[in-house]
Amino acid sequence: MDLRGKFIVFDGPDGSGKGAQLQRLEAWIQEQGGQVRRTRDPGGTVISDRIRHVLLGYDLSEMDPNCEALLFMASRAQLVAEVVRPALAKGATVLCDRFISATCAYQVAAGFPREDVLALGRYAVGDTWPDLTIVLDLPPEVGFARTGRKPHHVGKRADAGQLSIFEGARPDAMEARSLEFHRRVRELFRELPDVYPKPVAVVDAEPEEAVVWQAVQKAVQDAFQ
Amino acid sequence: MDLRGKFIVFDGPDGSGKGAQLQRLEAWIQEQGGQVRRTRDPGGTVISDRIRHVLLGYDLSEMDPNCEALLFMASRAQLVAEVVRPALAKGATVLCDRFISATCAYQVAAGFPREDVLALGRYAVGDTWPDLTIVLDLPPEVGFARTGRKPHHVGKRADAGQLSIFEGARPDAMEARSLEFHRRVRELFRELPDVYPKPVAVVDAEPEEAVVWQAVQKAVQDAFQ
Repeated sequence: MDLRGKFIVFDGPDGSGKGAQLQRLEAWIQEQGGQVRRTRDPGGTVISDRIRHVLLGYDLSEMDPNCEALLFMASRAQLVAEVVRPALAKGATVLCDRFISATCAYQVAAGFPREDVLALGRYAVGDTWPDLTIVLDLPPEVGFARTGRKPHHVGKRADAGQLSIFEGARPDAMEARSLEFHRRVRELFRELPDVYPKPVAVVDAEPEEAVVWQAVQKAVQDAFQ
Repeated sequence: MDLRGKFIVFDGPDGSGKGAQLQRLEAWIQEQGGQVRRTRDPGGTVISDRIRHVLLGYDLSEMDPNCEALLFMASRAQLVAEVVRPALAKGATVLCDRFISATCAYQVAAGFPREDVLALGRYAVGDTWPDLTIVLDLPPEVGFARTGRKPHHVGKRADAGQLSIFEGARPDAMEARSLEFHRRVRELFRELPDVYPKPVAVVDAEPEEAVVWQAVQKAVQDAFQ
């Protein structure tokens, strides 16, 4: 299995263990002598971090959904140009926490047309889509329990979820509404293999970390052997 | 002539007198009892100004061209949603300094496909394109002479022109290269009526301000009578 020059993304809800699995994969590749460039989306470059701050700096209910989607995509364009492509060209394996896949779930759940997300994504990153996207699949209730936080939902802008879906205690009605939103997010993540332009593996993230890691390893081996 | 609910943009190179003509049109509409909402692009809202700062905050040679285009479009999406549409709905005339037309000139001159700019523009602002775009046409040399500044060109990123094409003294070779770029910008502005989805009037901005103003008035009357 040769992971040189491969671009692998972890995505899925908060609480699904993306960070832990990404770290395990990084260590595994390094043990085999591979070089890893680890990054995150949105962010990962000075300019992308500035864009991230624009996204974080406002109650997203004030932000037009098109503006938000374009900002996420602008951040990805910079990340791919400045970090991902050069690292791949040097033979590193790029591991990224979230990517266009997240917009295909959170913003589409908020009413955005999925084909528009994919078209904008192509515009932003050209052909540099992940060779493999690993979706860590989890019922929202389990994610909420793990993070110890309750879902947060402001107006119709639950798509803010990607950055700040969680907050302290909230009224029950809002919670229920948000739960529905996050169920839709989960569905959309699970549909990703059928609509995404590049391979997506959905891995059950409910078992304990070591069990999930075995499934992640298998997904990577299946994709690149 | 009824300008209520109309969206009018002034565009063209620095030194072409956009600000002065916009101010004259604003006064003229107000004299007739009309209400004007004046704005600028990029900027015009808190979020758009934050995006403008991201665009201004870097040597644009570090910024990926796709990232830059997406940031301009994100700013426009917010401007249209927050300022332009509500003002038009209230019956105001919206006057805007620059818009998607600027990207059709500066970034296309830098090598960006024009059809991509127009597609992204549709994505950002939907159907809210200007009812009339007035391009103030000027040879670059005249603009440079008027502003008293020399063209500035860093690497291939002369598309930074929209925000900061001018600077102090520069080496002659760079100047010449930039002049060529700004000649291409002028050509692209002049081609706009044939490719833009909504009406564009090209007005000769070389005569003195009062003469240009007569041509601007005529363009507005022709478009809306």
